[in-house]
Amino acid sequence: MDIRNKIRDVGDFPKPGIMFRDITPLLACPETFRETIKLLADHYRGQEINAIAAAEARGFIFAAPLALELDVAFVPVRKPGKLPFDTQSFHYELEYGTDTLEIHTDAFSKGDKVLMVDDLLATGGTMNACIKLIEQSGAEVVSCAFLIELGFLNGREILAPHDCFALVTYDD
Amino acid sequence: MDIRNKIRDVGDFPKPGIMFRDITPLLACPETFRETIKLLADHYRGQEINAIAAAEARGFIFAAPLALELDVAFVPVRKPGKLPFDTQSFHYELEYGTDTLEIHTDAFSKGDKVLMVDDLLATGGTMNACIKLIEQSGAEVVSCAFLIELGFLNGREILAPHDCFALVTYDD
Repeated sequence: MDIRNKIRDVGDFPKPGIMFRDITPLLACPETFRETIKLLADHYRGQEINAIAAAEARGFIFAAPLALELDVAFVPVRKPGKLPFDTQSFHYELEYGTDTLEIHTDAFSKGDKVLMVDDLLATGGTMNACIKLIEQSGAEVVSCAFLIELGFLNGREILAPHDCFALVTYDD
Repeated sequence: MDIRNKIRDVGDFPKPGIMFRDITPLLACPETFRETIKLLADHYRGQEINAIAAAEARGFIFAAPLALELDVAFVPVRKPGKLPFDTQSFHYELEYGTDTLEIHTDAFSKGDKVLMVDDLLATGGTMNACIKLIEQSGAEVVSCAFLIELGFLNGREILAPHDCFALVTYDD
């Protein structure tokens, strides 16, 4: 698939032993970027979805065009101190320390069907925090869409029973 | 204009006396979000542009759909430690302290015509740093496009002689 050919492997980033999957060549190729959005949209078209949400920053790159393509709201999930209106937060554990994500309290209505989007599914920690944050507000996360899934990190298991969909999977 | 109606004023954010222009209602309305991208694209269609670049995070929300609409490369400008390949940096002064922005060294070719995009032109400090970073690489910034311009902060003067275009301007 051309999408996989536009993802560049960069070794030892962000630390030794880690192979980073670099999406900047894909973003530099409008045909492939457009195909990526189309394939994600085709997978979800016809499903009941009211909004697409994504955590900053790379998630925004795919979520914004996908929201336009599916004709639904785009909701940014942000780090603390970025959203100006009344917010609700979710605190979660990282490998070292903790982090917090926020949404506006009026971002969702009870019963909204939300598609979460990110570029990469690794261990699923950030996406799991997004799901919990959004479901606190009474909305439902119907699926999580990714460009890339690192299958060997078993992020899907963390996110279960939520549905996951990825365009490109790496098995090692 | 409907775009202005979808921008919410939030007082005293991020600090007392500041009126924050909140774009989340616009992002929640796909018709208005689409119209925003269309108006920006219409302004630049037919101009010689090879790439659109934007600094994280809100800039990505407008730059990615605009790059798809204009059929050109999208280049993310990032905080340090985010880009995995060889990078070049630009350090700049903020009100308190300094900050750094990075691009990949292969993001642009000499002579590339680049359109910079962000949601907001305030004092122009971040955009000016982006321009200097990109022009270090031999590319040319042909214009800077914004959803919102805070005219009373005179950001345009900082960015001159670079061209600026904004869809919505606030005069106080």
